Amino acid sequence: MKSTQIQCALDGKITPEMKQTSFTENIDEELVLERILNGSLVIMKRKYKSQTSIGAGATTKVNVNIGTSSACVDIDAEIEKALVAEKYGADTITDLSMGGEIKTIRRHIFNNTSVPITTVPIYETIIEHGLENLETDHLLKMIEQHVNEGISSLVLHLVDKKSLEHLKSSGRIMGMVSKGGSFTSSFMIKENCENPFIEYFDEILDILRRKDVVLSLGNSMRGGCVHDRFDSSQGMEIERNIHFAEKAKSYGVQTIIEGLGGHINASDISPHIKYYKSKTKFPLFVAGPLPTDISPGYDHIAGAVGASIASGAGADYMCYITPAEHLSLPTPTQVREGLVAFKIAAHIGDSIKYGLSDKDYELSKRRSVFDWNGQMQYAIDPEKPKEMCPKEGPCSMCGEYCAIQIMGEYLSKN
Amino acid sequence: MKSTQIQCALDGKITPEMKQTSFTENIDEELVLERILNGSLVIMKRKYKSQTSIGAGATTKVNVNIGTSSACVDIDAEIEKALVAEKYGADTITDLSMGGEIKTIRRHIFNNTSVPITTVPIYETIIEHGLENLETDHLLKMIEQHVNEGISSLVLHLVDKKSLEHLKSSGRIMGMVSKGGSFTSSFMIKENCENPFIEYFDEILDILRRKDVVLSLGNSMRGGCVHDRFDSSQGMEIERNIHFAEKAKSYGVQTIIEGLGGHINASDISPHIKYYKSKTKFPLFVAGPLPTDISPGYDHIAGAVGASIASGAGADYMCYITPAEHLSLPTPTQVREGLVAFKIAAHIGDSIKYGLSDKDYELSKRRSVFDWNGQMQYAIDPEKPKEMCPKEGPCSMCGEYCAIQIMGEYLSKN
Repeated sequence: MKSTQIQCALDGKITPEMKQTSFTENIDEELVLERILNGSLVIMKRKYKSQTSIGAGATTKVNVNIGTSSACVDIDAEIEKALVAEKYGADTITDLSMGGEIKTIRRHIFNNTSVPITTVPIYETIIEHGLENLETDHLLKMIEQHVNEGISSLVLHLVDKKSLEHLKSSGRIMGMVSKGGSFTSSFMIKENCENPFIEYFDEILDILRRKDVVLSLGNSMRGGCVHDRFDSSQGMEIERNIHFAEKAKSYGVQTIIEGLGGHINASDISPHIKYYKSKTKFPLFVAGPLPTDISPGYDHIAGAVGASIASGAGADYMCYITPAEHLSLPTPTQVREGLVAFKIAAHIGDSIKYGLSDKDYELSKRRSVFDWNGQMQYAIDPEKPKEMCPKEGPCSMCGEYCAIQIMGEYLSKN
Repeated sequence: MKSTQIQCALDGKITPEMKQTSFTENIDEELVLERILNGSLVIMKRKYKSQTSIGAGATTKVNVNIGTSSACVDIDAEIEKALVAEKYGADTITDLSMGGEIKTIRRHIFNNTSVPITTVPIYETIIEHGLENLETDHLLKMIEQHVNEGISSLVLHLVDKKSLEHLKSSGRIMGMVSKGGSFTSSFMIKENCENPFIEYFDEILDILRRKDVVLSLGNSMRGGCVHDRFDSSQGMEIERNIHFAEKAKSYGVQTIIEGLGGHINASDISPHIKYYKSKTKFPLFVAGPLPTDISPGYDHIAGAVGASIASGAGADYMCYITPAEHLSLPTPTQVREGLVAFKIAAHIGDSIKYGLSDKDYELSKRRSVFDWNGQMQYAIDPEKPKEMCPKEGPCSMCGEYCAIQIMGEYLSKN
């Protein structure tokens, strides 16, 4: 059996993957090894294709969710979304398909991409067996199937009975808004049992370890509106996820924790993330967060605001939000809009984490001399602005009355 | 001659406008008067039509720039932009027209709107006389014309010779990016004279006072890229604008200060605004700010991030940015996109300034029971999401597997 990154790090062995991370993220190889070992940095790998690094010292990464739903199945659209996600710079793709031929759709997504792929195996299990007939064994088999298909990362929701009780008395407006969390919870409620992923956690770790699949601990308890403030259910989930992440690490399984995503009052985003970071080193994955509820149709913009603040405060990995959030399954165009918004947020967050980027410098140098093609080399999405800018000279906003041009001569006489 | 708001406040007289502000902004009438008097709150009035309040205790306001350029003249498009701006909630509109029949365009904008209108009179003066033939007298006459036409607010750029010298040695990549600032500066450079608006400041105040037109002191020295950090030119401009705002106030002229707009490193936005607020009470008007340069085509999103942080830190009034920024004159659709992005930013900023809004609560209550029409009453732009959402039940993102629905029954059994 091949060793995982953590197992290699324990042996003091710098792997080709660690070397690659060192190069891409500009972190010393020894430091990469140290961070893999202490759990603060994770390498998510797509076999023979690519890898991405998430956590301490790495740039903020963006995940794109795609996939059919029971209400909307269009394989061609999903393939196009996968292509769009990769083209516009998604660091990872999560396939959340729950409609149509799920395995076929996943195979198409695999065949059309090279970035790491994540799944939430309970989704397909529910479709295959139905919520009513679900058994623990079905879940374990599905996890094994997905791992064998070559996924890079997998999401489990470790909600427990105690926190479900807390949720009941939380007085939340939106209750639970995590789909994976609600599936897991409804199974626990129906069977009146503890969480099967917790019960069989060791067995699952054993499966993940075989292929060094990254474990992502889901954020079942995230708030569904800004008025549902941080509560005991969320606090307990963070503690619980840290506990299980430590256990996974001791098994040699790389782990990231989803938390503090969803809808969060803008004032709370930064303090909450700093609180998380004070408690644990595991990379933090946030969905959004959305600092307002009243922007339907434009939640990618509100999400970019929350994600910029979150990333700047220390979030390592962000799940994008599209303009269709809360309304419908996104179209390929909306996938692009959501992704670009979150690439902007990650970039702004990184400027807070690590200081200003050379890309901003290089683009501005070219902007100051009206070098339009030169500018677009550094643009997050070069295609859209190329359709809008002039071929040469000042743009049509000011025409001949361009401040840069008017003042250029005076300022160049030094 | 009618007294201005400040003059009435000096007499201890609560005006109908102050009463209206008290009602709209939920501030005690006495406090409104006190704030008008100390300059921290300004009432911008559109005669017989509307007013908006900017400053201490008021919600963050958003300005929309429209107008033709010398490179792009389409009166119908400008009328449509004015209609779009008003429809989607612009608090004020600034007409920056520099192409075509400027007076006709302005008249159309007046006829099609009811919100306060701002102009930058040097723009039209330059078009009428040319940069080469510009004289101080032309500027004063144009100011008087605009005031007589019924503008609510007017922008002057008070750049001085000393700060122009500083700018020369600043080593900035982008130099000066303020159009009004560059016009004023080029006149000063050509004539080798001090700023005519400074030289004739008393005369200008006298004109403004007659109609209680709000004076907006322009931000000539804003940075044009994030690598052009806060410098002595910007620092001097803030000091100078505060000095002239105090003078205007003593004349009974309400004043706002434009500053700390443009491109600013994300980490600096909040500290810089807090620095400004520690120095003066005058309302702060920011353009953007943009925390990155590499988002051409999506600068409304990067701008919404900067504006949310700025508003949360205390900015009172924000000039929107459209997706066309740096590329071309915006289309009506792009005006809507930019405005909605900035309405979201203002709302997020207000949640930081004043706490969470009832609108978020009301929308979420309706979201939790799939009341789609109910939700849209509280949406910042209800039309776009209405085109995307279902008529009833869960949306197509999750279909029958909706977390809210799945967990609803369990959580309602309390």
